[in-house]
Amino acid sequence: MHPEPSLPARVTVVEVGPRDGLQNEAHPVPASDKIEFIRRLAEAGLRQIEATSFVSPKRIPQLADAEQVAAALPAATGALYSALVPNMQGLARALNAGLRRVAVFTAASETFTHKNIGMSIEESLRTFGEVITETRRQGVSVRAYVSTAWICPYEGDVRPECVRDLARRLLDLGADEISLGDTIGAAAPREVLRLLAVVRHAVSLDRIALHFHDTYGTAAANVYAGLTAGVTVFDSSAGGLGGCPYAPGASGNLATEDLLYLLHRMGVETGVSLERVAAASLALERVLGRPLPSRQLARLRSQTPQTPAS
Amino acid sequence: MHPEPSLPARVTVVEVGPRDGLQNEAHPVPASDKIEFIRRLAEAGLRQIEATSFVSPKRIPQLADAEQVAAALPAATGALYSALVPNMQGLARALNAGLRRVAVFTAASETFTHKNIGMSIEESLRTFGEVITETRRQGVSVRAYVSTAWICPYEGDVRPECVRDLARRLLDLGADEISLGDTIGAAAPREVLRLLAVVRHAVSLDRIALHFHDTYGTAAANVYAGLTAGVTVFDSSAGGLGGCPYAPGASGNLATEDLLYLLHRMGVETGVSLERVAAASLALERVLGRPLPSRQLARLRSQTPQTPAS
Repeated sequence: MHPEPSLPARVTVVEVGPRDGLQNEAHPVPASDKIEFIRRLAEAGLRQIEATSFVSPKRIPQLADAEQVAAALPAATGALYSALVPNMQGLARALNAGLRRVAVFTAASETFTHKNIGMSIEESLRTFGEVITETRRQGVSVRAYVSTAWICPYEGDVRPECVRDLARRLLDLGADEISLGDTIGAAAPREVLRLLAVVRHAVSLDRIALHFHDTYGTAAANVYAGLTAGVTVFDSSAGGLGGCPYAPGASGNLATEDLLYLLHRMGVETGVSLERVAAASLALERVLGRPLPSRQLARLRSQTPQTPAS
Repeated sequence: MHPEPSLPARVTVVEVGPRDGLQNEAHPVPASDKIEFIRRLAEAGLRQIEATSFVSPKRIPQLADAEQVAAALPAATGALYSALVPNMQGLARALNAGLRRVAVFTAASETFTHKNIGMSIEESLRTFGEVITETRRQGVSVRAYVSTAWICPYEGDVRPECVRDLARRLLDLGADEISLGDTIGAAAPREVLRLLAVVRHAVSLDRIALHFHDTYGTAAANVYAGLTAGVTVFDSSAGGLGGCPYAPGASGNLATEDLLYLLHRMGVETGVSLERVAAASLALERVLGRPLPSRQLARLRSQTPQTPAS
């Protein structure tokens, strides 16, 4: 039996629900409800919240209110808000809206990158190189997503060396954090550890965030594997909003509440109140008119006390 | 970064859905549907299936057909079928029905044991001592469940030493396998490893099975932790049937399909076909008239191909 692995004493949870979650809603959520949702998340103790995306409203009408949301972000909470920007136009809008952190989005698979953002990986690096340089020139920080870091829905398994090199180049361009995404939610702990073992030769793991989807039910196990490797930043989405939902009850993004439960139960501090995040998600459920997939919400929705079962 | 932990090359999946799952259905499932479900599970490659329970039909009317189900268990599949027996009367019925493996059920918390089976832990050991002795005398093997092995819904955290001593005594009484259950599904990987580190001083881990519920979303992470400790037997329930479901979409028992996905993706062999187990669960869904919570079923139910999402 291996010795019990040490875990980080504290991790940072990056809340992506308002952007990654709400952009996937069939019907756009009113800006006022988004702002209230974000306010509750910030007051729950989340210190990094991806609030919106400055993409073309034609492409993602759900986020056409980016300026309106950005203008109303609650400032007194101590949260750092970020927004996704796909290009220089998006960056100009984000900076004009006063954002102090932006995120760019590429992927480790050529086919996925082409289908998702219409560029090759090299083209995405040229585009984002320009975006990152200008962002940094304005004194604003940049996070970079590397999607399909393990598996591409078109190409299958992704080579860890591709992810490593892409992460290194994004850091060299000026990003300060690389979020490695299991986009289709199909990775398992062994490959999480194997990728990190390769990536760390080129990138310090304190620059790495992990972004898991629970499509195949492996997200919590992958978080645990990441913790044993020493990763201290994890992305999640309040309620389990967004991601690739296949069916009602199926989860896409790892739910923030479920991540918090796992971390807190193991004594890993986050500074975030699970109860307050869950309250924000339950309030959003009423706006959306449907239940969100977080396991903790299912428990909380049921007001009946637990009864023993054999 | 710790070295990547080695995992077992092969594990045994103990299917508990027909008993632990179907006993919790509001409306009893017809015996013919149970038999068809079990037949499909055996043909999927599951070699240990807990088929029913010889309890009082007044207590659990869902399993009043235990004799009928036992008489129709498909013999040619190579599966070993077991049944839960609460006492000597249940054992007599199970032996009379031709079962070659039985299971007994106690717990590591006094309050839970009292509320669940109306005995103290000591009384349960006396009862099961007699049951196990008689079972072994008939050349039939015995598995023992230790419920609330980490957390009791009434008493809170359970002392690992209590679990260790109880497991040891059950083995000494003649059980050949101890299934440690996270009854309310609230344990996390660190305490899984800590319990195993204590238990192994008294019980070889090749006698230990782990039985996780996914109520708090930690089951997959707990399985992974158990694998890193060297455990090679895991209980699960086809489709995620049973356990402590709080609400639609909330999971009780870890779904066999989700366990198989996690194991197979990491190269751990089981000899079981995920696709065929899923087909059995989807057929049972039609009998039950509701979807089961397995993540894999959610994927399979959706016939649309995956589309990339950012």
